[in-house]
Amino acid sequence: MTGAPENKSKSEIVTAGLLVIGDEILSGRTKDKNIGFTADYLTAIGVDLKEVRVVPDDEPEIVAALNALRARYTYVFTTGGIGPTHDDITADAVAKAFGVPIDYNPRAVEILRARLAQTGGVMNEARMRMTRMPAGAELVLNKISAAPGFRIENVIVMAGIPAVMQAMLEYVTPQLKTGAKMLSETVRADCREGDIGTELGAIAKAHPDVMIGSYPFMDEKRGANAHVVIRARDPQRLAAVKADVEAMLKRVHALLAAG
Amino acid sequence: MTGAPENKSKSEIVTAGLLVIGDEILSGRTKDKNIGFTADYLTAIGVDLKEVRVVPDDEPEIVAALNALRARYTYVFTTGGIGPTHDDITADAVAKAFGVPIDYNPRAVEILRARLAQTGGVMNEARMRMTRMPAGAELVLNKISAAPGFRIENVIVMAGIPAVMQAMLEYVTPQLKTGAKMLSETVRADCREGDIGTELGAIAKAHPDVMIGSYPFMDEKRGANAHVVIRARDPQRLAAVKADVEAMLKRVHALLAAG
Repeated sequence: MTGAPENKSKSEIVTAGLLVIGDEILSGRTKDKNIGFTADYLTAIGVDLKEVRVVPDDEPEIVAALNALRARYTYVFTTGGIGPTHDDITADAVAKAFGVPIDYNPRAVEILRARLAQTGGVMNEARMRMTRMPAGAELVLNKISAAPGFRIENVIVMAGIPAVMQAMLEYVTPQLKTGAKMLSETVRADCREGDIGTELGAIAKAHPDVMIGSYPFMDEKRGANAHVVIRARDPQRLAAVKADVEAMLKRVHALLAAG
Repeated sequence: MTGAPENKSKSEIVTAGLLVIGDEILSGRTKDKNIGFTADYLTAIGVDLKEVRVVPDDEPEIVAALNALRARYTYVFTTGGIGPTHDDITADAVAKAFGVPIDYNPRAVEILRARLAQTGGVMNEARMRMTRMPAGAELVLNKISAAPGFRIENVIVMAGIPAVMQAMLEYVTPQLKTGAKMLSETVRADCREGDIGTELGAIAKAHPDVMIGSYPFMDEKRGANAHVVIRARDPQRLAAVKADVEAMLKRVHALLAAG
């Protein structure tokens, strides 16, 4: 066990849920940027984001959502609610979800005191709040705010501010088990989605191991157009289905040209 | 009962859940814009958005999330998965969640045929897919795509494309019950969140009927700063708590200036 990496086999599928915590997202005051970033980031490192939930700053709601997600996915990432004010209740909710006590973490206190010494701020009850962690949690550090997030079992608790959240996600990444990366190819249909739906469905049915999505967009030149996105972990399966889609598009274009 | 509006009393609280459906959001390929828009829109009309879930194009996942949300909130809005391709399975999932059959809706077929006649497209199996609706559903029209969404009981099924989704949300708004609008005031702290956390918590505790949030931001001049957002349905309660927050900030500023 001398430093054996957690991710021996790349064939395993590693999944994640994301729990976004904050009244400000649900009221519209703040536009979330963490969902899109986390989706891109996890896809890039070989973790499948399977579900996102946004809940208010309400303890029973956070506890229920966290318990639902942590039972289902390899990892759960949370964003928001770990600051110094009364509405920052994520740490307490996580402790409650795990049924463990919560207390000031000595290392978090030390880190915060060191930062305050630099910036001229004073330690007070509100700032001490940011150092409370559920028993058994390990710190998730970040250089931007100094106030750490934490990890307990498969749950990683991060800040809501995008720059701080991103620093925490990077910090925790080397600890994560990752699976075979999902690969993708995008083919531009150059016709309308409704022109290819039936044939694309037949290709999807013939290749249940490959994910095929169709995403309409408005093309300045042609009007309604679509992107076909093919996703698979095996590069050869991906290439084979991409070829099938391109052959199908040729047939459809010929038919449309013939009127 | 001659045209009596559904929303006789404005004291009732009307809630909503939002279900965003689509692999492309979870993979990061598409950055969702519907959550922020819907949050703003519902807040403005007096409907409280209480929860958002993002799920993949997977029938059991959609059914489970929809059944959880529709049992809890006055309304559930869904976005995505109502196009002409094989991965558009929202209508089927909604029919399954309600335990009702699904079939081609004659009026939806008529609307789509009329649009195709204008644009020179042909009706085919894929396009007919967009006219399938659960039994008992009413159409939710939009002028942009012509392919309608639908409403069944308290569930409103909308497109994923933001412009089409927005048109559908506007179409359905006159049918919705709305509550007393949540009002809000934002006060700029002009100090760090950690400087006001304790006193702000005391104000929040003294006014449990008013929601107070604190949102840090980086200020080019001062560095770390925060906005205090106060939310209430009663304008007088809102004004009273705003005055308390402003008085508290004055005290904190004086203390900080005194060193």
